[in-house]
Amino acid sequence: MISTDALRELLPGGRVFDDPDVLTAHSRDRATFCPAGTPLALVRARDTGDVSAVLKWAHDNRVPVVPQGARSGLSGAANALDGCLLLSLEKMDAILDVDAEEQLAVVQPGVVNGVLAATVAEKGLFYPPDPGSRSISTIGGNVSTNAGGMCCVKYGVTGDFVRGLEVVLADGRVMRAGRRTAKGVAGYDLTRLVVGAEGTLGVVTEVTVALRPAEAQPLTAVAFFPEVVDAARTVTGYLAGGHRPSVLEFMDASSVKAVQQIADLGFPEGMAAMLLVQSDRGDQAPADLAAFGEVARARGAAEVVVSDSAAEGEMLMQARRLVGDAHEKLGKALLIDDVCVPRRHLADLVEGLQRIAEHHRVQVLCSGHAGDGNMHPVVAFDDADAAETERAQQAFDAIMRLGLDLGGTITGEHGVGQLKRAWLGRELDETGLWASRAIKSALDPHNILNPTRVLP
Amino acid sequence: MISTDALRELLPGGRVFDDPDVLTAHSRDRATFCPAGTPLALVRARDTGDVSAVLKWAHDNRVPVVPQGARSGLSGAANALDGCLLLSLEKMDAILDVDAEEQLAVVQPGVVNGVLAATVAEKGLFYPPDPGSRSISTIGGNVSTNAGGMCCVKYGVTGDFVRGLEVVLADGRVMRAGRRTAKGVAGYDLTRLVVGAEGTLGVVTEVTVALRPAEAQPLTAVAFFPEVVDAARTVTGYLAGGHRPSVLEFMDASSVKAVQQIADLGFPEGMAAMLLVQSDRGDQAPADLAAFGEVARARGAAEVVVSDSAAEGEMLMQARRLVGDAHEKLGKALLIDDVCVPRRHLADLVEGLQRIAEHHRVQVLCSGHAGDGNMHPVVAFDDADAAETERAQQAFDAIMRLGLDLGGTITGEHGVGQLKRAWLGRELDETGLWASRAIKSALDPHNILNPTRVLP
Repeated sequence: MISTDALRELLPGGRVFDDPDVLTAHSRDRATFCPAGTPLALVRARDTGDVSAVLKWAHDNRVPVVPQGARSGLSGAANALDGCLLLSLEKMDAILDVDAEEQLAVVQPGVVNGVLAATVAEKGLFYPPDPGSRSISTIGGNVSTNAGGMCCVKYGVTGDFVRGLEVVLADGRVMRAGRRTAKGVAGYDLTRLVVGAEGTLGVVTEVTVALRPAEAQPLTAVAFFPEVVDAARTVTGYLAGGHRPSVLEFMDASSVKAVQQIADLGFPEGMAAMLLVQSDRGDQAPADLAAFGEVARARGAAEVVVSDSAAEGEMLMQARRLVGDAHEKLGKALLIDDVCVPRRHLADLVEGLQRIAEHHRVQVLCSGHAGDGNMHPVVAFDDADAAETERAQQAFDAIMRLGLDLGGTITGEHGVGQLKRAWLGRELDETGLWASRAIKSALDPHNILNPTRVLP
Repeated sequence: MISTDALRELLPGGRVFDDPDVLTAHSRDRATFCPAGTPLALVRARDTGDVSAVLKWAHDNRVPVVPQGARSGLSGAANALDGCLLLSLEKMDAILDVDAEEQLAVVQPGVVNGVLAATVAEKGLFYPPDPGSRSISTIGGNVSTNAGGMCCVKYGVTGDFVRGLEVVLADGRVMRAGRRTAKGVAGYDLTRLVVGAEGTLGVVTEVTVALRPAEAQPLTAVAFFPEVVDAARTVTGYLAGGHRPSVLEFMDASSVKAVQQIADLGFPEGMAAMLLVQSDRGDQAPADLAAFGEVARARGAAEVVVSDSAAEGEMLMQARRLVGDAHEKLGKALLIDDVCVPRRHLADLVEGLQRIAEHHRVQVLCSGHAGDGNMHPVVAFDDADAAETERAQQAFDAIMRLGLDLGGTITGEHGVGQLKRAWLGRELDETGLWASRAIKSALDPHNILNPTRVLP
């Protein structure tokens, strides 16, 4: 066992923790079925110098390092490994600059997404990436997973807003990648390589993000369908008609029912699917939603509700936002999947989920970002029942297989982490895997940074 | 000298050329001051199998390979190296799929940008990236340089529209990177790593691009300013006001004058700068342009002209599009630069260019994508005069120094190639250079792909 005394000397003043209770409390993110090891210590970095010192020490001593933000991830990428250093970036939570003229912000990785969004909103600016975890998740974590959210259908994902990064490499060297300018093509895109690498290529210590001008308060509509396939056809039909909604979400019957049980929103009974759409185009929003209503009705919607105020729309959005809580309230263990398929296969996906649920005798609920084809099937099961737990894992795997068979990906926004590592080998081809491993080995030859994550 | 007989056997039927005239005709792109070597042969690939076979042969025989598209690049990245194979992708020019429902297209690298744009427009779709070379440049070249254009201020650059790639690695292995779906975070972003790598990491043999719904025909306005600084303040003021023009371009007095000499557009005399703005927001475009006029007048514009039809606007756009031709007509050699600076430093950049022109006694004209801060200063000089040529090179270097000093980059959209290779070492930090070289060595250990380009 390596002693952390030298590390404590390097980083005095309460930055290194090895109390077992503290370590246990910091050993897991929010993934299900991902084992966590016993860490050597937890370091709370206060600045880039701390991160560099930790990595240099870890590199010299061949100790694995697991970077952590808010541990709100869903793939186990921030779980402890045996004998690792947990490197928490949470205390590096300063917003260093909000530049309204250049429409950018420079932040430390520990800044919470919602805090950044609210701060820039005060200056009339808009930071679109809005993962469901935005009230707790950090920008560093969002960058490391290339997080998505509801806005993506119109505005894109986290990576689309990252202009530059400060990154500490596995041996402690500090690198600046990217730029502050709107454009720039000087050299390889190291910024985008680190975005989504889940802490395996470097530790992000500063992020320069692009901002947009604030948009109008969105208006909202919901539509209810007796048949899932008609909801799916509404999604493709509406988007193919040239509309660019700012939100276009799907909830299946089970998700709607679960939400109704914690907050009665008066939704109709007996529906197979619900779509929720928003437009933030100001004066044009009512026409956008009217067009949505027409498309939905023409494809079999039983009911369409268009809110005529932003406040009423916000109430409808609550239904979507409550899905996670509603699933939790089922009193079962949950395995949250994250497949993304071509939009035209949304109905095939949902129908396939029904077959998987029946075959494996588990409940599968489904909601997600329909406009992107990025769905979150949730396997709900009794984790006190070993056989059902086994069947739940099989169902989870069958969902990823289905996503790939429909021309999709195993992860649209949550990342690979530990949970889907074996599956990455089925999504990438042999040469892509080789290239990925070659890059990892080149930048981190001693496999210090989050080993055993992402790459199989 | 290596014999190409074996290569000819591998690729029979007129795919391998070694006629010296043919080789000479294919030895250069459009960069100034970039030497070209004598190639061993030119291969015109017809499919991915050809590209793979060429690279395998080249790898086995340690022969450098220079990939080429339309050779419209401006940085020498496609110039021949002594003893290299020129690998032309021009004949791989099929549009394989235009999928209106998923809003994507799959194309071979040799498809000309403008051909793709026109083809998808017939289906009511829009491929925004619009480099100035779009009537001749290929998608493969656009991907390899991460090309920009006038649309970027609103829609982003080529890389923002690339979802997936087929890439042949240096040893001939074929890799699929990315996806067809709207989102996806499975593994490292190999797609974005290859985008902008200027053929040094792999040869792109297929590109999946995202499309958008068609936008309305844009309306156009121009404004003329007695002082450059007021034009610059108009750019920042208009954008900070929350406007998102689809085009926002700058021309300095010399560029306006040069254009007037080939097409009298009746522009006012004695102005220091002109801005051209477009809005493609349909019914809202007139209000967008009216707001632009107000901002411009409040900041000292002497004249603002708002077109009231798309056709009249197109005529004004001609002025901007003619800048390249107008510069050519000066009868001098031209060195085209491509710095991108924070928008607030546009005036500092233009003033700095005047000082550089005076100090080095050469003419420097300037136009560019003002909304992105991406400017194209052009050094015009007499290349029959060795001393003036030397001063032109010094001015070119001084412009890049100025761009970096203003917090910008040496290249916003043209790439590094051969022309700016030494300068990349001044823009990147030591660790960034190390990481870039490590990635190159990992993926191409024998330095087969476009060696001596990009990385210093």
